[in-house]
Order: sequence, then C-alpha cells, then structure tokens
Amino acid sequence: MAAQSPRSPLAPAEPARLPPIAGVRLGVAESGVRYRGRPDVLVALLDQGTTIAGCFTSSKTRSAAVDWDRANLKNGTARAFLVNAGNANAFTGAEGVKTVASTVQALSALIHCPREEVFVASTGVIGDPLDPGLINAVLARTVDTAAGDNWDDAARAIMTTDTFPKAATGLSEIAGQRITINGIAKGSGMIAPDMATMLAFLFTDAALPGPVLQRLLSRSVERSFNAITVDGDTSTSDTILLAATQKAGLPLAGLDDPADARLHSFARALDAVTLDLALQVVRDGEGAEKLIEITVTGAEDDRAAKKIALAIGNSPLVKTAIAGADANWGRIVMAVGKSGEAADRDRLAIAIGGMSVARNGRRDPDYDEAALVPHMQGREIAIVVDVGIGKGRARVWTCDLTHRYIDINGSYRS
Amino acid sequence: MAAQSPRSPLAPAEPARLPPIAGVRLGVAESGVRYRGRPDVLVALLDQGTTIAGCFTSSKTRSAAVDWDRANLKNGTARAFLVNAGNANAFTGAEGVKTVASTVQALSALIHCPREEVFVASTGVIGDPLDPGLINAVLARTVDTAAGDNWDDAARAIMTTDTFPKAATGLSEIAGQRITINGIAKGSGMIAPDMATMLAFLFTDAALPGPVLQRLLSRSVERSFNAITVDGDTSTSDTILLAATQKAGLPLAGLDDPADARLHSFARALDAVTLDLALQVVRDGEGAEKLIEITVTGAEDDRAAKKIALAIGNSPLVKTAIAGADANWGRIVMAVGKSGEAADRDRLAIAIGGMSVARNGRRDPDYDEAALVPHMQGREIAIVVDVGIGKGRARVWTCDLTHRYIDINGSYRS
Repeated sequence: MAAQSPRSPLAPAEPARLPPIAGVRLGVAESGVRYRGRPDVLVALLDQGTTIAGCFTSSKTRSAAVDWDRANLKNGTARAFLVNAGNANAFTGAEGVKTVASTVQALSALIHCPREEVFVASTGVIGDPLDPGLINAVLARTVDTAAGDNWDDAARAIMTTDTFPKAATGLSEIAGQRITINGIAKGSGMIAPDMATMLAFLFTDAALPGPVLQRLLSRSVERSFNAITVDGDTSTSDTILLAATQKAGLPLAGLDDPADARLHSFARALDAVTLDLALQVVRDGEGAEKLIEITVTGAEDDRAAKKIALAIGNSPLVKTAIAGADANWGRIVMAVGKSGEAADRDRLAIAIGGMSVARNGRRDPDYDEAALVPHMQGREIAIVVDVGIGKGRARVWTCDLTHRYIDINGSYRS
Repeated sequence: MAAQSPRSPLAPAEPARLPPIAGVRLGVAESGVRYRGRPDVLVALLDQGTTIAGCFTSSKTRSAAVDWDRANLKNGTARAFLVNAGNANAFTGAEGVKTVASTVQALSALIHCPREEVFVASTGVIGDPLDPGLINAVLARTVDTAAGDNWDDAARAIMTTDTFPKAATGLSEIAGQRITINGIAKGSGMIAPDMATMLAFLFTDAALPGPVLQRLLSRSVERSFNAITVDGDTSTSDTILLAATQKAGLPLAGLDDPADARLHSFARALDAVTLDLALQVVRDGEGAEKLIEITVTGAEDDRAAKKIALAIGNSPLVKTAIAGADANWGRIVMAVGKSGEAADRDRLAIAIGGMSVARNGRRDPDYDEAALVPHMQGREIAIVVDVGIGKGRARVWTCDLTHRYIDINGSYRS
C-alpha cells in the first residue's frame, strides 16, 4: 500500500466528542491481520433487547459478511457488532463464509447470545483469505476491556486509508425524553476495494422497534451515504448498521409510520448525524483538496435530479477542472447531457458559488469569470443546476480529482 | 488551454496512407477561430448522388450542428461535410443555430447544392459563440484547393487536443468490384467538452443505398466507437458520418439486409476501419500510457456483457491500478459487482495477460503475481472476465488514468 497519507486538508478542525449511550460498550484490540501497532478489531456490545436496522452495498459481488448481516437483519435484534480492518474477507469463496461463521461463533459463545445476533463487517484488501484465528484470539480482550467511553478508539480501529477518524453525535427528543445518537464511520474514496470500504455504525438509546428504525435509516441514508461519491466505484462490503438500545423512554404506542410527528426530532437528528458522517467520508476522499456540493433542481422528479447530480459529481472532467480552480461550466453542461435524464438544453441554468454562470441555454451575458476566482480557489465549491423540466431536486457531494488520487491508487501494493 | 501535449507513447509508429476515393475531394483552411498557424476548417466535397449514414451523441445537451445533421440524414444524400476545430458551437442557444444556418448557406451557395445536403460538425470549446463570418470567409479557398489526396491535411485540420492525426483505410469487394473505405477521426479523452469531442468521417466508393449504409454503420459503431471509453464522459457533439459516392460498381439488386452475404467483405472492412480509428482515439486518450482491452464472457446477454466491461473500463480504481502496473484484480471484482448486471460471484473467473488470476469466485491457487509483472509493465493490457451466468460477450477498450490526465484537464484554460 502507499505510505500513510497526510491528514486531509478538509478534515474537521476538532473531532466530535461522543457521549456514552446506555446499553453500548466498545472494545478494541490488535489482531495483527495486516497492521502493526494499532487496533484493528472493534467489538460493540449491545444490551439485550437492542433493535437493529441496516443498509448494505448493492454490489453483485458482495462479501460474506454482508450476506450474513442481510440474512439476520430480519430477526430485528442485535447483541454485538464485530468489525475488522485490513482484510475485507471479500471474494474469498467458501472459505470466507467459514471465516464469518467462525468469528461469529467465537464472539457469541463469549457473550452468551445467539449467533444470529452478532453482526460482522470487514474492510481492507479483497481476495486475500482472512484467518479467523487471528480475530478470535483477541475477542476475549475486546470484551473484557469494553467500555462506554471508547468512541475515539472505536473510530480509529475501523480505519484503513482514512486520514482521520470519523465520528458524529446528535441530540433529539421522543415524547419529551432526551435521545442521543452516536455514529462512527470509515471510508476514503467512496470505496477502494483495496483498502477503503465504507462502513458506518450508529447507536441510539431510543426505544424504537426494528421496522421503524429500518425505514428511518433507509430514508436518511438515501440523502447522506447514498448522496456522496468520491470516484463512482461501489464496494463489495459497504455496511451501515443502526442499533437502538431501548434505554431512553418507553416504546411509543401505535408507532409504525416513520413520518409520525412524534419521530420528527429523532429523524432530523438521525439525518444530521448520517450527513455529518457522510460528508466526513467525502472530506477524506482520496486526494481531496475541495468539497463539492451539487444541487440539481427542475428535474422530472427527485430520482432524475439525483442521477443528474451524480453524473456531474462522478465526471472526471468536472472534478479535474475544480481541482484546477477552473469554473469550466461547459463540462457541467456535458455531464447533464450524458446523464440520460430529461433536461431542456435551452432553459438550462447553472450557478457556481451563488453566481449565475449560464441561463436560458447559454452563457449568462453578465457572467464575469474573474469574479468567480475567489470561490473556485476556496475549499468548498457549490454548484446549482436547474434543468428546466419539472420540480425534482436532489443534492449530492463529491470531492475534486487530484494528483494524490493517482498517487494513492496507482502505487503498487506492498 | 494546457500546453500542447507530447505525442502519445501509444501512437502508431507510421500514420496510415490513404488512397484517393472517386467522388471525394478535401480542402482545408485556417479560419483563425481559435488556433493560429494551422488549418482548422475542413470541407469534404462529395459528388452528386453520394449516399449518407450517421451516428451521433446521445447527449441531451447536444449541439446545434448535431441537431442539423440528424434532421437531414433522412434525405439520404450528401454533397459536403463542413468541419471546424477550436469551437464546438455547443450550448450557444439560438445564436448557435444561426451560425449553423449561416455556414451551411454559404457553402451550399458556393457549390450549388441544397442546404440539406451539407452536413456540419464543430469541435472545441463549448459555450463560446462561434462567429460564422470567420468560417465563411475561408470556404471559397477550401473549395478551390480541394483535392483527392489531401487526407493527411484533412486529419490534421480536425484535431484539437489530439497528439497525432488519426486515419485508417481498408479494401474489400462487392460483387467482384474492389471497394475502398477511408476514415479520419479526432478525439483525445473520450471527450473533453473543453477541447476533445469525438468526430469521425468515413468515405467509400461503394454503390450502397443510404438505409443499408446506415444499418452497417450503426452495427459497426456499436463494436468500435461505442466500445471505447477514456473517462466515461460523453460529448455534446460526437458525430460519425459515412459517405458512399457510388463510383465503384453498380447498385446490387434487392439489397435491403445488412447481413446479405454480398456485403460480408465490405462489412468486415468497415468494422476494421472503424475499430482502427476508435483504438487510435483510445491510444490518444488524455495522458494514456497503456491501452487496455477488456473482454467479458458468460454474461446474461451481449448488452449485459458490455455494461460490465464498461464498468471495468470506466473505474478510476482499475485505471489507476493499471497506470501503476498493479494487477489489482480485486478492483475488477468490485467493478463487476457495481455494474448492476447478473454475475455469479462464486463462479467468477479473471485472467490478465492470458494468466488465470481468479476462478470459482476466489484467487486462483496457482496464480503467481510475480509472473504477471512483465505483462503489467507493457503498453497493452488484456483483461478477460467470465461472470459465469450465460453466453453474452463483449469487448471494450480503454486506457489507464495517469497524472497527465489531471495535468491536461486540471490546468486552467488560458
């Protein structure tokens, strides 16, 4: 692998400090699978009765761990998350399935829970067999040392090519009861199967049933983790899990609609935490020097708007132009055109940094490229495109494409 | 724009020498639209009775020239192609439509043909108004100096960021009559709307009707120009035109099926010329150091195979790995998975440079990475992936993603 990269210039100045969440304890250990001198195994222990929701990669070559979690999500409860960094245990055939079974068996025996309540995630090199013995050997230590204030260690234990640990927290209320949501994530490059799967683990003390939790999470992920891209590639192992320990307040009567007004505050906080984590992943995009926010309006519907926004966000030509501080809006026109979604070429309007660049299908006569230079030279670029068809809208985030991306991904694995 | 790039290391050692084609004369001139000291306008004059076929960008923000050509293709005949380099006349609103009308009018008046028989193509910066006066002022000169042996000048006149002119020729026979096909193309980067639309102009002396020509061209383009990618971006202006002057032999009786055995030789030659030109475009991909051929077999159908092949060919992670001479096959697995097409993870097989790397959904036990190093360090990389589902197959070509791509596309336009 490439030498450790310097901390991203887009990293938050201060890491978030996460409070304890009743019913959650975290333990980390060094397994030696790939890294030396750093924790690479995380166990999150969850009190009995914890409900669970999850979202996973849509990859057709997904890992054995993803298959395991997806199959067990329907049971609705969880007692532990087991995560390792350095080896993704992906594309490892029947042996990979056995590795998952072995580590799940070992942890469930240690904490006396059904195997189906242990959820696993692996991130790192794909195609290399993962020896479960190395993980199993350190499980007792992670369980013995697990504590409620270990959030920073936990965020660090799941890193691969990340240049900073990613954590976020938010407060809300349900029925007057204070509810906390904590989250940690890893990812650098939307994904580099070599080393950079996207993982996120969310924890709350809310007393919410699994199905409601699932619908809230799915909606939130659509606007956060599913609205970011670094290189348009999709990992074999992307996993997002949300555990609710039921410790704060009592279950709400007759709750089955995620749009229920009693959930508004919680849903807003969940949206904020997932978006915060997702943007931290983009801010740690491989080689990223600039964060790019792309808003598309006027599309046929929200789905079309998102497809257009992602076509812009995944265009190497748009991303290299922004790396060069070049407001090359012609490339944005190109990306809109290639998305395949309806757009009225002669009503298309583009604004960058709040300044109108093009409207009515041509360059804005008042556009002054020089006036845009300070925005283009900044760390955060805002692009708004109206495609002149309907009311669909979406917002996505990406980063620029720089020489360091090539350095990181084009250097030979050691 | 960036300084002129050095000639691609993947350029053919010798440019193809194109013979005259009866009924085709080519003239070039310097308009001064953008470049200085080089021809940037090409006029191809076609004898009366020439039939025409064309394929165009699927972009929703296509240029006025593309709209004009598409509308006139149905008439089936052509008397001239008019091409300019340096300004794409795209995203220029109503003014752009007027520019097309003005240059078409000027050339049709000069050569005494209906306006509908003049086909136009523009390539270069988008969003900048194109002054038709600059083009019109040099048309008489292009017509006066037009000659049948001007192929090298013609190939050079349509270049933008291309580092070498692109030409190809092929011989075939129809009903015992010798038939020539000549082609010239430009493109560097599948497309960079800034400077690098893909254009190709093909000429033959065959006596073929427009509808048959169109079906032969469409099929050929699907396996050549539509099977290459440099950066996955799609231009506003991509145009491929094929003119048949009817000078060699007589029309075939009862010809309406492009699969007619009497056309086999011609179809093969057309396939060869279009593929030759398409590969020259990839070989001139921005910053390309390696040509990558990707063959996918075992897919649900040919369409699925092509989608998987393009997912691999467009993956920045695959392309940067190859730039680094790294046989990082895990990224190929990832790209197969993200394509969305059916693939049997546990039957997936990958070969690179003819060497089995993975089979049955895991690393090949006999795979020796060191043995693959010489292939990875070469100029041409061959990847074969079997996805273990059905009989669909496809082949596509791309190039690696290098620092020079960033240099070329991330430097500020001057």
